[in-house]
Amino acid sequence: MILSPTRESVLLTDLYQLTMLQAYFDKAMNATAVFEFFVRKLPGNRNFLLAAGLEQVLDYLEGLRFTPEELDWLRASGRFSPAFVDSLADLRFTGDVWAMPEGTPFFADEPILRVTAPLREAQLAETRIINLLQYETLIATKAARVRQAAPDRHLVDFGLRRAHGDEAGLLSARTSYLAGFDGSSNVLAGMRWNIPLFGTMAHSFIQAHDGEFAAFEDFARSHPRANTLLIDTYDTEAAARGLAPLARKLAADGIAIQGVRIDSGDLGQRAADVRAILDADGLRDIRIFVSGNLDEYSVQALLAAGAPIDGFGVGTRMNTSNDCPYLECAYKLQEYAGAARRKRSEGKASWPGRKQVFRRFDADWRMAGDTLALADDDLPGTPLLECVMRGGQRTGPSPALTTVRDYARAQMARMPETWRKLETGVPYPVEVAPTLQALARQVDSRPV
Amino acid sequence: MILSPTRESVLLTDLYQLTMLQAYFDKAMNATAVFEFFVRKLPGNRNFLLAAGLEQVLDYLEGLRFTPEELDWLRASGRFSPAFVDSLADLRFTGDVWAMPEGTPFFADEPILRVTAPLREAQLAETRIINLLQYETLIATKAARVRQAAPDRHLVDFGLRRAHGDEAGLLSARTSYLAGFDGSSNVLAGMRWNIPLFGTMAHSFIQAHDGEFAAFEDFARSHPRANTLLIDTYDTEAAARGLAPLARKLAADGIAIQGVRIDSGDLGQRAADVRAILDADGLRDIRIFVSGNLDEYSVQALLAAGAPIDGFGVGTRMNTSNDCPYLECAYKLQEYAGAARRKRSEGKASWPGRKQVFRRFDADWRMAGDTLALADDDLPGTPLLECVMRGGQRTGPSPALTTVRDYARAQMARMPETWRKLETGVPYPVEVAPTLQALARQVDSRPV
Repeated sequence: MILSPTRESVLLTDLYQLTMLQAYFDKAMNATAVFEFFVRKLPGNRNFLLAAGLEQVLDYLEGLRFTPEELDWLRASGRFSPAFVDSLADLRFTGDVWAMPEGTPFFADEPILRVTAPLREAQLAETRIINLLQYETLIATKAARVRQAAPDRHLVDFGLRRAHGDEAGLLSARTSYLAGFDGSSNVLAGMRWNIPLFGTMAHSFIQAHDGEFAAFEDFARSHPRANTLLIDTYDTEAAARGLAPLARKLAADGIAIQGVRIDSGDLGQRAADVRAILDADGLRDIRIFVSGNLDEYSVQALLAAGAPIDGFGVGTRMNTSNDCPYLECAYKLQEYAGAARRKRSEGKASWPGRKQVFRRFDADWRMAGDTLALADDDLPGTPLLECVMRGGQRTGPSPALTTVRDYARAQMARMPETWRKLETGVPYPVEVAPTLQALARQVDSRPV
Repeated sequence: MILSPTRESVLLTDLYQLTMLQAYFDKAMNATAVFEFFVRKLPGNRNFLLAAGLEQVLDYLEGLRFTPEELDWLRASGRFSPAFVDSLADLRFTGDVWAMPEGTPFFADEPILRVTAPLREAQLAETRIINLLQYETLIATKAARVRQAAPDRHLVDFGLRRAHGDEAGLLSARTSYLAGFDGSSNVLAGMRWNIPLFGTMAHSFIQAHDGEFAAFEDFARSHPRANTLLIDTYDTEAAARGLAPLARKLAADGIAIQGVRIDSGDLGQRAADVRAILDADGLRDIRIFVSGNLDEYSVQALLAAGAPIDGFGVGTRMNTSNDCPYLECAYKLQEYAGAARRKRSEGKASWPGRKQVFRRFDADWRMAGDTLALADDDLPGTPLLECVMRGGQRTGPSPALTTVRDYARAQMARMPETWRKLETGVPYPVEVAPTLQALARQVDSRPV
């Protein structure tokens, strides 16, 4: 509630975007610019990245404008000429966007978004485009890895509370679902995107009652068809042993206990002990759900050790992408006024020109290698960047989130195990087309 | 712009808050609850944490309510009883809040916020309270560490683009300023909190021009009093050598080049080379500003090596708190209906009851140790938690951000070097008062 009047503002940008726009205005520089978003190199602990965030970027571009209050504030700041501020009043995004669909795996140097627009529009949008694409890609990738670690278990996003602010929590729910999670605890995400919602109970619920079985019974009676009881507040095994009499009592009223959650201790050992107790008591239908600082590594280890766990609540470490909290990503000018450009900064040089990525598949439709090429090259393989916005308007309706989710699953299924697994090793093969190499040489030979 | 209709919604919470509230409603459980927010243990690479986020939490609590649309959606979800959903229509936060002022250093187990309210209000707020306090505390702490590493240099937040979403970017600007930064590149943060804004130019500005000196000249003419030229797009030393003739040309029109920015390569070596070139050319007043994946460690190393750097743009690694992207924090029920409570989960036990933290100072007003005690204990030292909200209303106007910033600086100055420095070692002394220990024993002796 705190920031609503101004927060979705176009002023959520870096000052230099506006000071550069002032200089462009002064020199009437506003020819067509081509910017691309890409990741310079994959993090050492990632074999692939999963593209996400395009939907939010397109919303942002469609809504990009300055309000009268923002223009007044810019005028009063004294940093800009009145004529320049006036010129911002009718600024809209009028350009084209090509992009990889959300849910597409990609690799170093491959653009996942290309913006072609008058310079001032393409430049101004830089900060928010990076802000959205980086974060959603981080989370989609992390969630896809958790899904790889537990292909057939129930996975729920629990990370809102430790995500970095409200938007991070909201986009994490969206993006983890897109990448294969079953749902989220985030109610607003459920309302907004129809993402399946799941929840259990907090320790405070147990503590507020006099005795945990009173708490369990109250909860089950309030939620007869969806109840997962948190059993680790005091003594996990004691709680598990006490479920049999409670289950009989509830069964008399037609209520079944659906599951239990364990949130502390050695989760594998606790799950095994609880499973044994429940099974011995004839409670084989009660599912075991665990949570507590989980990530793809701990999920994989628990399942490899045979822990009888039916579902995982994965939160903090996914929503902060804790082992990789940022990407070496950039949104770079590749062409201006018809001429290809490139940056040559030490260790940060980029490939010039408008680009396309061609992905080859083998006879079983498994990914076999990519070629980074020029946009008008015609090479073997599937071109991954598609036109999604023309003249500032989407080229068609956005796909439903479930459609994107199905697409992402299909893409991941086409990725050979070498890159799908958690451990990193040989990089996925990405070649640079001769045409692009030639263009880079040509650009470098121009005087600066 | 994407999420404005619903985003500051009270539904930005975990589903279990609402399912618990349904169960409380069914049993008419709504006595007074006391919850506290604290960090279970300090991260291994932190000697202290700096409290932040209170201001946003108070805004959230004051605005907490369900809209008719949200109530309709909850009703239609089929998860809740109509009577319960109706009861949410007039839910407001009516409780009291005690908290450490923003900018107060704190340590493991010390509550920085205590909420006393009817159970349903205190419970519902859990998710967003953690979401705000954790993130702002992470960033305040990280920024305070960067400031310790560079006590007398110009420090600017550059992290919006790689922060995790819009709110993270916005709150990072606020919180890093609070913790001692000089300003931010984030324009919206400048508009909202009057935070000083700084910016330079992007590589795209250079690339869009035919030649970097044309770009430099354009920019300086558009911004005669605030221009920092980015000199590493092609060849850093060549750009530095070319500034002397440009400076003479601009001086004829009364324009001075203010600074240069270096964003790649070995920043210390580049800065030394550039400083030597500029000094030899009589350009001693041009300041050198550097950026590029900086953090407190690299800033400290650059200055220890004597790099002639006047200012640092610190972004990604600060705004993601990359070496510590989350805290082991919790918001736990400590008392319900007049009885102290505690959780005893394996490895996650907490201290029961309403608490206060007393901080002792030595004769030079340097921090000498804390005592974690009960709220009504009267112990030596300064009690750190103050009443900031009563009956759902702030007890007074919020301090200006500059006042909070001054307070934070004064607190950091009182911290002995042992804990102020970046390297971790002996923990700061925090004792547990005998009264609190006795209460814990008493709570544990009650049957559950």
